[in-house]
Amino acid sequence: MEIERPYLLFLGDVPDALAAKTGLGIVDWRRDWCIGQFRLPGCKADAGLAEMAPAEAAAKGARTMIVGAVNAGGVLPDHWADSIVAALDAGMDVASGLHTRLGDHPAIRAAAERNGRQLHDVRHSTMRFATGKGTKREGKRLLTVGTDCSIGKKYTALALERAMREAGFDADFRATGQTGVFISGRGVAIDAVVADFISGAVEWLAPAAAPDHWDLVEGQGSLFHPSFAGVSLGLLHGAQPDAFVVCHEPTRRTMRGVAHPLPTIAEVIELTIACGRLTNPAIRCVGLAINTAALGDGEAQALLAETGAAHGLPAVDPIRTGVAPLVERIAEEFGRPESRR
Amino acid sequence: MEIERPYLLFLGDVPDALAAKTGLGIVDWRRDWCIGQFRLPGCKADAGLAEMAPAEAAAKGARTMIVGAVNAGGVLPDHWADSIVAALDAGMDVASGLHTRLGDHPAIRAAAERNGRQLHDVRHSTMRFATGKGTKREGKRLLTVGTDCSIGKKYTALALERAMREAGFDADFRATGQTGVFISGRGVAIDAVVADFISGAVEWLAPAAAPDHWDLVEGQGSLFHPSFAGVSLGLLHGAQPDAFVVCHEPTRRTMRGVAHPLPTIAEVIELTIACGRLTNPAIRCVGLAINTAALGDGEAQALLAETGAAHGLPAVDPIRTGVAPLVERIAEEFGRPESRR
Repeated sequence: MEIERPYLLFLGDVPDALAAKTGLGIVDWRRDWCIGQFRLPGCKADAGLAEMAPAEAAAKGARTMIVGAVNAGGVLPDHWADSIVAALDAGMDVASGLHTRLGDHPAIRAAAERNGRQLHDVRHSTMRFATGKGTKREGKRLLTVGTDCSIGKKYTALALERAMREAGFDADFRATGQTGVFISGRGVAIDAVVADFISGAVEWLAPAAAPDHWDLVEGQGSLFHPSFAGVSLGLLHGAQPDAFVVCHEPTRRTMRGVAHPLPTIAEVIELTIACGRLTNPAIRCVGLAINTAALGDGEAQALLAETGAAHGLPAVDPIRTGVAPLVERIAEEFGRPESRR
Repeated sequence: MEIERPYLLFLGDVPDALAAKTGLGIVDWRRDWCIGQFRLPGCKADAGLAEMAPAEAAAKGARTMIVGAVNAGGVLPDHWADSIVAALDAGMDVASGLHTRLGDHPAIRAAAERNGRQLHDVRHSTMRFATGKGTKREGKRLLTVGTDCSIGKKYTALALERAMREAGFDADFRATGQTGVFISGRGVAIDAVVADFISGAVEWLAPAAAPDHWDLVEGQGSLFHPSFAGVSLGLLHGAQPDAFVVCHEPTRRTMRGVAHPLPTIAEVIELTIACGRLTNPAIRCVGLAINTAALGDGEAQALLAETGAAHGLPAVDPIRTGVAPLVERIAEEFGRPESRR
């Protein structure tokens, strides 16, 4: 799925910022791709962009309106449909992360056909993939894995992309979830792929590349999550990572949506290596990304130092401390970019 | 997916028995569900059933015509479509394991609507599942796992169903692949489910049951297969098996479709326990099912004895020796059926 940019962000009339977290995430990482925001009366989310209706945004060059908010239930309210039709009539494509398919709405489908525009439903995979082959590809790959879902895997991969590029690496974020697809303009919501093609989809997503190129693959779920571990394992095999980072949240007691406790970081490292060596025998852990938002600064720093020492790995909080120690570890283990040698 | 029986088997005009293996598998295990076979001129496969056109089969009580053969490419030839329309016009449902959806063929869709009949595409899941919860359910479950795909997992589960029922157990085969769905009249082709719902689909398939009831869940793929391990892991977590049997073929050198060597039986046991204990801490291996078809009788018996001794487990070839030693091990470890105590 390739989404044309720049974007107009549609935030609807959602009651809070959480309901617009997709749109806000896009602005966090790709502000320069966003021409403006389109909000309906009563909208309580604000991405801090110029307010703009579809016709104006299109005139300024916007190519795609992103539905960057969800209402309760993930369905498509009729008054949002009118806004989407307006975007299509203004000549833009529309991309959505809603559960409802855009094309299932007759007025939206008709408007897309009438204007010859694309509808992108990132939660629904219409692409056909081959089954994974597990053959070693050229280029380097890093996967973010976790002790749970929703624990910072996307954020860590994006922070690594930014920091590695600043350090001179040739590095690309590779999206496997809907917000990530909007942020990279390309990718696949891996949890929406038919089960037989999980690893094959990731082989497509992070293809063979130059030996010094790094793909930074957004992880999903956890090998220890009873709902989603199959997705995580197919993703691990397809990504065949040279390196992985374990993401963790130290105050969380049970995994999301289930009664199971979180695994330990050591358990995640051990099982990721045990399974990952199938497609990359040299797989290794290069660091820990720990969300310390619930802790005070002193406590957080102590926890990072202690956890890093216990595992012999750099431990960072991507938000509080940045990811420089992870980039340094990658440079030490895999070599610095040519320009900085 | 629930398929009404009895069945009429449609074998088309396939050039050999291999192309009709789905139909032949149904007859192997459920001959009493099959009223007859419907073959077109030139068909080289023969299930040994009475020859019967759709109208006659329907008059004798057949409720569903099963497309039990595949032509090259898995698509639906036009001259097969005529036979399917005839079955619908005779008042039967039609179930197919082809890649092509029956309803995508206009004449078939029209005939189904006109007659108010069901079309079952077992390769395509239209059911909605919840995500897996991983909560321990009542009842006992056994999963067949493997060192590769296509290595006897379905056959072993079906042989265990037959032998356990004969031994007085309350036991049901649970199908996770297309042929298995036809054989059990119910089930889900787990590799066709959207990735997020693999374990949830298996929780639906093998639900809570009486404490003495055994669900014998058909395994898929292998935790070590780089194409399909995600499916295998979701299936393991969803099945939360009390017991598992490892299926193996000792002369196979690489896994199907890829260049990777087969894992050892010991590796499969170790990783299955390491991952399976997430949803069933008491998971254990109760035996080995080894396909010795490529060996002579003396060699096969020696291999079974030696492999069993090496792992401290009963080792059988379900076809050559039957599965009685596995049933005996299950009885020893989990108790005999009430009627035989």
